[in-house]
Amino acid sequence: MLLKHLREEVLEANLELVKRGLVLYTFGNASGVDREQGLVVIKPCGVDYDELKPEHMVVTDLMGVIVDGDLRPSSDLDTHTLLYREFPTIGAVVHTHSEFATSFAQAGLSIPAFGTTHADYFYGPIPVTPPLTDEAIGGRYVHETGLAIVARFRELNLDPLAVPACLVNGHAPFAWGRDAHDAAHNAVVLEAVANMAYRTMLLRPGAEGVSQALLDRHYFRKHGPKATYGQ
Amino acid sequence: MLLKHLREEVLEANLELVKRGLVLYTFGNASGVDREQGLVVIKPCGVDYDELKPEHMVVTDLMGVIVDGDLRPSSDLDTHTLLYREFPTIGAVVHTHSEFATSFAQAGLSIPAFGTTHADYFYGPIPVTPPLTDEAIGGRYVHETGLAIVARFRELNLDPLAVPACLVNGHAPFAWGRDAHDAAHNAVVLEAVANMAYRTMLLRPGAEGVSQALLDRHYFRKHGPKATYGQ
Amino acid sequence: MLLKHLREEVLEANLELVKRGLVLYTFGNASGVDREQGLVVIKPCGVDYDELKPEHMVVTDLMGVIVDGDLRPSSDLDTHTLLYREFPTIGAVVHTHSEFATSFAQAGLSIPAFGTTHADYFYGPIPVTPPLTDEAIGGRYVHETGLAIVARFRELNLDPLAVPACLVNGHAPFAWGRDAHDAAHNAVVLEAVANMAYRTMLLRPGAEGVSQALLDRHYFRKHGPKATYGQ
Amino acid sequence: MLLKHLREEVLEANLELVKRGLVLYTFGNASGVDREQGLVVIKPCGVDYDELKPEHMVVTDLMGVIVDGDLRPSSDLDTHTLLYREFPTIGAVVHTHSEFATSFAQAGLSIPAFGTTHADYFYGPIPVTPPLTDEAIGGRYVHETGLAIVARFRELNLDPLAVPACLVNGHAPFAWGRDAHDAAHNAVVLEAVANMAYRTMLLRPGAEGVSQALLDRHYFRKHGPKATYGQ
Repeated sequence: MLLKHLREEVLEANLELVKRGLVLYTFGNASGVDREQGLVVIKPCGVDYDELKPEHMVVTDLMGVIVDGDLRPSSDLDTHTLLYREFPTIGAVVHTHSEFATSFAQAGLSIPAFGTTHADYFYGPIPVTPPLTDEAIGGRYVHETGLAIVARFRELNLDPLAVPACLVNGHAPFAWGRDAHDAAHNAVVLEAVANMAYRTMLLRPGAEGVSQALLDRHYFRKHGPKATYGQ
Repeated sequence: MLLKHLREEVLEANLELVKRGLVLYTFGNASGVDREQGLVVIKPCGVDYDELKPEHMVVTDLMGVIVDGDLRPSSDLDTHTLLYREFPTIGAVVHTHSEFATSFAQAGLSIPAFGTTHADYFYGPIPVTPPLTDEAIGGRYVHETGLAIVARFRELNLDPLAVPACLVNGHAPFAWGRDAHDAAHNAVVLEAVANMAYRTMLLRPGAEGVSQALLDRHYFRKHGPKATYGQ
Repeated sequence: MLLKHLREEVLEANLELVKRGLVLYTFGNASGVDREQGLVVIKPCGVDYDELKPEHMVVTDLMGVIVDGDLRPSSDLDTHTLLYREFPTIGAVVHTHSEFATSFAQAGLSIPAFGTTHADYFYGPIPVTPPLTDEAIGGRYVHETGLAIVARFRELNLDPLAVPACLVNGHAPFAWGRDAHDAAHNAVVLEAVANMAYRTMLLRPGAEGVSQALLDRHYFRKHGPKATYGQ
Repeated sequence: MLLKHLREEVLEANLELVKRGLVLYTFGNASGVDREQGLVVIKPCGVDYDELKPEHMVVTDLMGVIVDGDLRPSSDLDTHTLLYREFPTIGAVVHTHSEFATSFAQAGLSIPAFGTTHADYFYGPIPVTPPLTDEAIGGRYVHETGLAIVARFRELNLDPLAVPACLVNGHAPFAWGRDAHDAAHNAVVLEAVANMAYRTMLLRPGAEGVSQALLDRHYFRKHGPKATYGQ
């Protein structure tokens, strides 16, 4: 079986989203990329998670052309492949409609960095795209969703691995990471961070985020050449 | 046993509501209709879900006259049968007191279409009826509840399959669908959508719903002759 | 064993509170009364629910004098016995610190009857006592807690079986019923009703409760000589 | 194995935090101190809870110098050891990023004593530190976190065993107790109390806390020489 290991990782990432309560029915998908072969492994569309097996995964090239698989790929495929093409350091993409992150996306609000939980994973606010134009929605919509994420990151001059998630306005979050495990982990933490940001904002309207010093301290404790966290 | 398959489907829909946390004790009911025979299968009233079996289901005609069954039917029977008579395209009805959808019903507010999760299932806001008049409450109350739903849909010129749910003011939601599985699924998604609409409104009072273009794009991706979602 | 059946019922009511998520650690207690013998069966104080057995229950008379049992009774005993003496129609009392009902008690707010879920169980708002005076707190505090509940019900001219719960200001809810099963059931529904009232009030500050007609319709559908609900 | 019993207690406290939903992935840690030997047992950093065993615990002296253990200790070690040095009556420390307590920390708000649930465990509001200065963050950050807690307790003249928790501004809560079981228990109750305080504040902005009389009554019912609670 082509890309057996990557299929297993992508399946496991999909199941992690279910286990953590981020996915209702089939509202989510994860994919991973093999950079050497230029191939993407993605969940098929609308299949129950209970029945998902590695052989159900769909393999496409970086333009989304199916290379292997009998099932139709996730309907969000074109967003995934665009992110792989534009963000060359990422190895996996995850999309969910998780409750709190989606509520921020629906409100058109980015998630401020209110605390160290956030700073441990996201080096600054998690951005939200502007609403898509009617033209973009009426055109290559799924592709345009990816373009909106990339444009927002370029505009804010963000490193996708330093802020491994983006909210799509009126839609829901996308998260990513170095590999499928990392991307799913980031999506789970994103939801926890969104939950606490929501409560922080209701407790104290106008609350400000953490200082740059605290953001730096926590982020670089876990990331970069001077990281000290873990074993 | 009369309508064995439909009884099983209706039972399964009732259990799906419990499994998804939409029902506390016996606060919910599901029914299905056999259009050819003009018969309705509905959950009995006030029986524990743990003990429900297909043979406990009550069979009535479309006017609610019992045709088969030893138990009393759900106290909401007259709302179900009225919906079957007035909405000829639906095949099943579900009623719950699920937490977030009921809170909107209690507040007398419709649920705006704030995002694509909503648009994937409901083609526009989920309406709420006006409060029932004292006369309606004092008269054929359960029947009047159905009338209020139908009147609201007529007033808004809504297709019941395009917006497969309605909130009853001061009461709780009804949802429906092509069959029992579909109706229960819609009730579960309704609750998720209500949850996120609630949080969206608290995060951003005055938030506006998605554009008509986005509503169209997502709704027609999953519904109608040009649907592309699923296998 | 004295009052074997009542001990089992009271134990089961205590466990129902845990099962439904109303009780953290040992923050709750249930009791039942045998009106013929004038004896009360109550949970012992501070014992883990996992280890509770019928023989651990403490038996007292209506003045709270221990008649049988090696363990110390729940610290709220004096509230329970006072309620039995003053509300002669009730057969069981339950106390929890459940999340939403306790939040209303802490806010010093009664729970308005916003919908039919409420009206099916509680014939009007669930009242809250005024704060206890420093004298009452410094005196026979637990007894005074019961007095405050009774005084509030007298003041509002409420039938304890028609409104089977009260919030104690700055403290938490007490619920009751015809028997232990009924009292625990009411405590569980109280929490669900408080949850939805909370969300209703946040969605629509100033929201009004249901009409008297709807309150009547739903309450008397399930209670009184003309009740039609259930089998 | 050195300090076998304490290792087991500390492990059990860590697992209690997971069981009660206070910890996502590895976002938390617990430690205990052996006052006679002057040794601290703490969870290793970034190890999955599923795999934690007593022999994985790290033993340090009160200055944080590792005495036994192959794994790197929790990254918050210096806060734990500072609290042991400055609060000589405490026997264990717990740190989590639990949802509601962390939201108060992020909002920079102390948790008012709104009810008896709070008063049973915490003799007054649960304080929040001021934000750390950039110098403190850039210096011995973890040590400075402990200093901020201690300074806040000195400033408010609080007994650490009477108020066994503190929120660190922009970060998350620390809780403690006489032993590891007690500290974990306090962290769990802290989260329940924060949950209800959050809802109390949303229901009634400007709500006031309980009276001193009620705070005294409940706190001293469970603590101090005149305690009457439990068996």
